[in-house]
Amino acid sequence: MKNIALVLKYEGSAYHGWQVQKNAVSVAATLEKAAAMVVGHPVHITGCGRTDAGVHAKRYVANFRTDSGIPVERLPYALNTHLPEDIVVSDAFEVHEGFNAIGSCVKKEYTYLIYNSRIRDPFYVNRAWFYPKRLDETVMQRAADCFVGTHDFAAVRSVGTDVKSTVRKVYHFDVEREGELISCRICANGFLYNMARAMVGTAVYAAEGKFPPEAVADILAGKNRTAAGPTAPPGGLYMTRLWYDDGKAVFHVE
Amino acid sequence: MKNIALVLKYEGSAYHGWQVQKNAVSVAATLEKAAAMVVGHPVHITGCGRTDAGVHAKRYVANFRTDSGIPVERLPYALNTHLPEDIVVSDAFEVHEGFNAIGSCVKKEYTYLIYNSRIRDPFYVNRAWFYPKRLDETVMQRAADCFVGTHDFAAVRSVGTDVKSTVRKVYHFDVEREGELISCRICANGFLYNMARAMVGTAVYAAEGKFPPEAVADILAGKNRTAAGPTAPPGGLYMTRLWYDDGKAVFHVE
Repeated sequence: MKNIALVLKYEGSAYHGWQVQKNAVSVAATLEKAAAMVVGHPVHITGCGRTDAGVHAKRYVANFRTDSGIPVERLPYALNTHLPEDIVVSDAFEVHEGFNAIGSCVKKEYTYLIYNSRIRDPFYVNRAWFYPKRLDETVMQRAADCFVGTHDFAAVRSVGTDVKSTVRKVYHFDVEREGELISCRICANGFLYNMARAMVGTAVYAAEGKFPPEAVADILAGKNRTAAGPTAPPGGLYMTRLWYDDGKAVFHVE
Repeated sequence: MKNIALVLKYEGSAYHGWQVQKNAVSVAATLEKAAAMVVGHPVHITGCGRTDAGVHAKRYVANFRTDSGIPVERLPYALNTHLPEDIVVSDAFEVHEGFNAIGSCVKKEYTYLIYNSRIRDPFYVNRAWFYPKRLDETVMQRAADCFVGTHDFAAVRSVGTDVKSTVRKVYHFDVEREGELISCRICANGFLYNMARAMVGTAVYAAEGKFPPEAVADILAGKNRTAAGPTAPPGGLYMTRLWYDDGKAVFHVE
């Protein structure tokens, strides 16, 4: 059996997230169906993270096992002919037997987009958070800085999935404005359920003056979800970069 | 009666073009319905051009007449609350009685986007022409140069609407590549039916080697539609800039 890693992109508006679910169209189920057509047997695909309904991926990594003889470099083209236009496989390569798209991932980055203008932009519908009230990105950055480092992130996660620990390490949370678009790049060794979106909502609340940006350190220490800001809507969130290192497979996808 | 000019943007994927038609949802009909709600009487809206089904507008100008007392600066917000998310009014101002969104327009620019990569991008579905074969943008530019100036454009228009003359003046046709995106900006004093898309298709055919780029001058002179390239698909086309000058109303929208 070969273990194949896929690099993909998807526009998530039409999907109920990555994960296979009953009675809902997911990216994973769509991809598994396409892969089964190509390799000629049922396929189970492991993804690098459970993106929510409406969340996008500029880069995403998944893996699956097959004994098909199809040359691995042909796989992206073969898969794309069976995939809808909003999911695209850009690369495929063989990885060692123990490689796992989520388990071997040591670091990932999400980027969140806010369209901050008094007037909506029709080209950002479902692709950025439309926020008509002016946000000061320097205040957002001061709030964002409080998240960087190793912390218990219980204050910015939604309950829903069981995890052993709510401690994570955030490597960067960079807020930048380009015209009316504010981008928030968040890199961590792992993300709790809704963590990236709650971190963005908290930085926005600081810019709104709901609490001083420096108070985010205390909010985080308090581990109380209701003290932090809201969960930003899914359409603004994109998985953007991934780092892999399990000793054997060491690579970076961006 | 006041004469009101509106500046708008729309993502045209869901519409059968600008023009009001029976049994099809158009941008104009959607806007007229919203305007009627706001001003309290039926409204007829004149647009700056008949964009086709699936064509977008980053900037578009329309005008209508009303005796409503609503302050003109309130109009964008009032209209946007009645419009779907893919049509947005960004500005409104009063113009002189004789102003006409199409008649007073002296020059407009369309921009056409080609996503030129072997692998599709899910974020450009319906927003750029996916063209997997590599195109040399310098060859496209040489073909594009043949269109600049005053010519009979019969070779690059689709028959469909009656026009008095097929002579137009093209001010620029600039082809630029940024990574995998090729943008074609075409400015003219007027566009025949499908003219911008046929000009792009012809520049692409030149880059494909179907004819030498300099042969486009002869193709244009021959006035034979079948000698030119294909009509590029609608999703790549955006109205981007407009110039107005009717002696009284002189402005530029971009």
